[in-house]
Amino acid sequence: MAKRKSKTAVDGRASKPRTPATAGDDTAITALGLPPETLSPEMAAYFAKCEEKLGFVPNVLKAYAFDMNKLSAFVAMYNDLMLAPSGLSKLEREMIAVAVSAHNRCYYCLVAHGAAVRQLSSDPALGELMAMNYRAARLSRRERAMLDFAVKLTAEPWQVEEEDREGLRRLGFTDRDIWDIAAIAGFFNMSNRVASATDMRPNSVYHDQAR
Amino acid sequence: MAKRKSKTAVDGRASKPRTPATAGDDTAITALGLPPETLSPEMAAYFAKCEEKLGFVPNVLKAYAFDMNKLSAFVAMYNDLMLAPSGLSKLEREMIAVAVSAHNRCYYCLVAHGAAVRQLSSDPALGELMAMNYRAARLSRRERAMLDFAVKLTAEPWQVEEEDREGLRRLGFTDRDIWDIAAIAGFFNMSNRVASATDMRPNSVYHDQAR
Amino acid sequence: MAKRKSKTAVDGRASKPRTPATAGDDTAITALGLPPETLSPEMAAYFAKCEEKLGFVPNVLKAYAFDMNKLSAFVAMYNDLMLAPSGLSKLEREMIAVAVSAHNRCYYCLVAHGAAVRQLSSDPALGELMAMNYRAARLSRRERAMLDFAVKLTAEPWQVEEEDREGLRRLGFTDRDIWDIAAIAGFFNMSNRVASATDMRPNSVYHDQAR
Amino acid sequence: MAKRKSKTAVDGRASKPRTPATAGDDTAITALGLPPETLSPEMAAYFAKCEEKLGFVPNVLKAYAFDMNKLSAFVAMYNDLMLAPSGLSKLEREMIAVAVSAHNRCYYCLVAHGAAVRQLSSDPALGELMAMNYRAARLSRRERAMLDFAVKLTAEPWQVEEEDREGLRRLGFTDRDIWDIAAIAGFFNMSNRVASATDMRPNSVYHDQAR
Amino acid sequence: MAKRKSKTAVDGRASKPRTPATAGDDTAITALGLPPETLSPEMAAYFAKCEEKLGFVPNVLKAYAFDMNKLSAFVAMYNDLMLAPSGLSKLEREMIAVAVSAHNRCYYCLVAHGAAVRQLSSDPALGELMAMNYRAARLSRRERAMLDFAVKLTAEPWQVEEEDREGLRRLGFTDRDIWDIAAIAGFFNMSNRVASATDMRPNSVYHDQAR
Amino acid sequence: MAKRKSKTAVDGRASKPRTPATAGDDTAITALGLPPETLSPEMAAYFAKCEEKLGFVPNVLKAYAFDMNKLSAFVAMYNDLMLAPSGLSKLEREMIAVAVSAHNRCYYCLVAHGAAVRQLSSDPALGELMAMNYRAARLSRRERAMLDFAVKLTAEPWQVEEEDREGLRRLGFTDRDIWDIAAIAGFFNMSNRVASATDMRPNSVYHDQAR
Repeated sequence: MAKRKSKTAVDGRASKPRTPATAGDDTAITALGLPPETLSPEMAAYFAKCEEKLGFVPNVLKAYAFDMNKLSAFVAMYNDLMLAPSGLSKLEREMIAVAVSAHNRCYYCLVAHGAAVRQLSSDPALGELMAMNYRAARLSRRERAMLDFAVKLTAEPWQVEEEDREGLRRLGFTDRDIWDIAAIAGFFNMSNRVASATDMRPNSVYHDQAR
Repeated sequence: MAKRKSKTAVDGRASKPRTPATAGDDTAITALGLPPETLSPEMAAYFAKCEEKLGFVPNVLKAYAFDMNKLSAFVAMYNDLMLAPSGLSKLEREMIAVAVSAHNRCYYCLVAHGAAVRQLSSDPALGELMAMNYRAARLSRRERAMLDFAVKLTAEPWQVEEEDREGLRRLGFTDRDIWDIAAIAGFFNMSNRVASATDMRPNSVYHDQAR
Repeated sequence: MAKRKSKTAVDGRASKPRTPATAGDDTAITALGLPPETLSPEMAAYFAKCEEKLGFVPNVLKAYAFDMNKLSAFVAMYNDLMLAPSGLSKLEREMIAVAVSAHNRCYYCLVAHGAAVRQLSSDPALGELMAMNYRAARLSRRERAMLDFAVKLTAEPWQVEEEDREGLRRLGFTDRDIWDIAAIAGFFNMSNRVASATDMRPNSVYHDQAR
Repeated sequence: MAKRKSKTAVDGRASKPRTPATAGDDTAITALGLPPETLSPEMAAYFAKCEEKLGFVPNVLKAYAFDMNKLSAFVAMYNDLMLAPSGLSKLEREMIAVAVSAHNRCYYCLVAHGAAVRQLSSDPALGELMAMNYRAARLSRRERAMLDFAVKLTAEPWQVEEEDREGLRRLGFTDRDIWDIAAIAGFFNMSNRVASATDMRPNSVYHDQAR
Repeated sequence: MAKRKSKTAVDGRASKPRTPATAGDDTAITALGLPPETLSPEMAAYFAKCEEKLGFVPNVLKAYAFDMNKLSAFVAMYNDLMLAPSGLSKLEREMIAVAVSAHNRCYYCLVAHGAAVRQLSSDPALGELMAMNYRAARLSRRERAMLDFAVKLTAEPWQVEEEDREGLRRLGFTDRDIWDIAAIAGFFNMSNRVASATDMRPNSVYHDQAR
Repeated sequence: MAKRKSKTAVDGRASKPRTPATAGDDTAITALGLPPETLSPEMAAYFAKCEEKLGFVPNVLKAYAFDMNKLSAFVAMYNDLMLAPSGLSKLEREMIAVAVSAHNRCYYCLVAHGAAVRQLSSDPALGELMAMNYRAARLSRRERAMLDFAVKLTAEPWQVEEEDREGLRRLGFTDRDIWDIAAIAGFFNMSNRVASATDMRPNSVYHDQAR
């Protein structure tokens, strides 16, 4: 993957017509010069499956592809958390992803997972609400408690205590559900930081998905 | 304008199919029960002009319509800041509006002015960048400095000093431009709070404008 | 209005006698070089009324006087919020102004509106309490709730929700009152930022008014 | 010292005429019921000296008078820091006291030491600037650096490093001066917290001293 | 793994002798009732290797053992980041782990990785410095820049930009090193949150390792 | 006391073997060049008593020894707060010291008073819990409330009110106990800042005391 030029463009008022905001996002995926390795057979198959099902390979996977061990470990954890059976619906998991990423103001994850919320809910405005301020959405008490827990865990993890877990249990969440909320919130606290540290750019195709 | 019901919906996992996130947004515009006054001739003409040019009356105007003095004052200030001649382009002014509203996580303003950035720039992703994290956008040095000033003024106004103004002047901003950046940032710090305090809802039509 | 010199004075321990802290405050009102326009007849009349009733024209008005449209819009909004009929007394409105400005540490507004609290309450210490820490004042539950709402809206507007509005209603505030608290808090969040961005200086006469 | 009643007064709009904000401040000095001990001869002499020189005994001394050991230790440390020979003038020391107390929004210390700044400088507005936002004052570079150090040490002590000390040395502060700035800033970080924890009230006489 | 009792112990001053702070830490590892699955052969071998090399199985592994997929994914990612070849030494990686965990005040990770820093450096005080305030340690410029990047990424990931990456490159870090710093900081931002959300307890044996 | 060299060591990866983290901590106690005065007889006796009872003189005392008045005042206040009769046990007082110092991330106080908690409790892990996150410790309700009050007073003293004091009273704390909690929390808010401002180093012997 080619290393990008510095992102501050030429100055001046007459800088119109401006370069599209997504220019380069599909080719220069991060600010780091880390050329991809040859994909392992397993990962090649996985990329092919992405192409088939989504029509593209998410840029985060291309960003990790400079090292097959890192790519495999990321894929294994991601797929377990977001796609494996859980007491949380896939939409709920994506809502957590976006609410956490909104706290961390992570452009990559807000674009990619905002699109997922729009798709899974068939409700474009729900995706925007998660990205802008989940507190303004009309949510069930269950959804709201789930997101409050995830965002508190994001903002001040040292303050999370038994009382917070009890609050979730009272609304019907099992201990396994609590683990899943925590693990997903934790995962996006990781991914948000890897994306911000490397200026990772989302595939341009996400922007108008499920609008 | 009818006062809305409390926004926490019925609970439970089987709450599908969920109510669309924008349900009621065009009819129950705020959480306050403030019935509109009869529009003054001047404001009736202005609303008619909105209908004609935009196809709708922005909900913020309907929210202020319970009192003609408040509505007129708001309209006069808004139109002067956002539409009157200025050293800042209309797009630059809307970029300030969205970057400030992103700091304050104001749903109404992010939706309404995010649409404006998309329209004025013909670049949907630019609107999303302003709403998600303007620091991730590829901006000219001028644009970046303008937004850094507006967001610092939003986050910690007590820290803004001559050095900050000098930084803008060095990039070619005049003292009048500095006033305009400050006044627009200030205005959205006001509007964000009126909107959040009243749970103001954006017209649903904004969501897919200029995508 | 003449543009001021940079404010860092000559250095050194022997810099006594020091220049009075208000030096220049009545002549070089902001750090921006924006010469006043000729006042419109309406604004000239308003300035004359200020001179007559207050004995001076508040510097914020002089600061806006480089553009009659901006000045008129500011005056219209200010007078509606602070002087028009409302469920909030004028003193309550000024208390909100000062508590918000204290959060934002705005020198101009603390001086000018601190004086207003002293005058309207005939209680100098009340003005100081609002400027220093309103939580240390002995307030009625109504006053305290009003200020808590205004300051929460100032500090973290994204957290204001129905529960906050309900708290005000339980203490007897109407929905119109809630609007007024929000609109005044919002207005000073704007003014604090315009003042800080331009280093606006309060008229020196405020300092010993109503002591 | 009599323990005060809870400070939330009777509610209701018709609560005028309101109780003066300083009511009780000279008799019920803290929210704790800690009756004074008999003053030791040394402390009795000190209180007499206060009466003679100031015309009153500062309430903080009365608050500590429930225990002679605590009172003596406080007086010894206070007098050494604020009155003993130092490279910092008495005014500079009081400016530090007020700027630190402003960060911590301590009513007692802002009132008492704000009065001291007014007196020592013969400049009432300087006292208000220290209490409202010292960054808005026209200070010498020396004064500004001294206050920036004291306030950084107050806000985020874990970030203070050699670079900060070097900045002071470059402006002519000796290592002993640096100690004194730190010790005074530290002392008011202590006193602000004792005052806030006990709702300590300033002598009402401070309010109009040196206006 | 047995679910723990609520952690607030019996009250009262005579509660001596107090229960040791580590009581239960080796048996009731989290606050969630998630019984372990049978270990897969691969994971059984890994646990055996831990027993052999460390003398115990780290509690975090036991906490994940309720689900083999989650355990495997965690182990794969952890081992790649902390043990695989990298431009960062193992000590540097553990220093990042502890400095990040100190920002997040994560008891589990501070205990477990504090021990690792002590061991790898043969310098007990270095472990304490990383856990208490890494800025107080005498570090090389390389180490300091690495930790500053990791902690900024932890505290305000949205502020990390090209300038931060350039700072690392100027000190000799490669783009691969930058990835590794970001990935390790990200990983502990995840683990800190999983640990805090579940009240995960460190093996008691860590406390006196390498003192 | 000799002034230390700047703490950033020589750079480079091959900087092994690294200088021990405590190098110089027992000889160059602060970053300031403040040579000790001759000890007064009273202070000489006190230092001798420290040597006899502890085996060493705590570095904070050596740091203050450049001025006998400052040293005496510090010692008087410290001994009164931490050793004189009080409704708080000595362990409780040291727990407050460490929890406050953890909030302020003060290396000196965490090392010195962490050792004191370990010694007084005969429970090394309790010392680590206080330094890392007291919320993760299994405390009595009394202990927890005491530390919550002390840490709130540290983090946002302006928010402490009658409700906080009432919470302590309900758990059996007297008004004198409340004073003591506040005074100790205040004292360490002072000491943390003096230590951070001067880069004060703890005696190396503390590190393995009572492990």
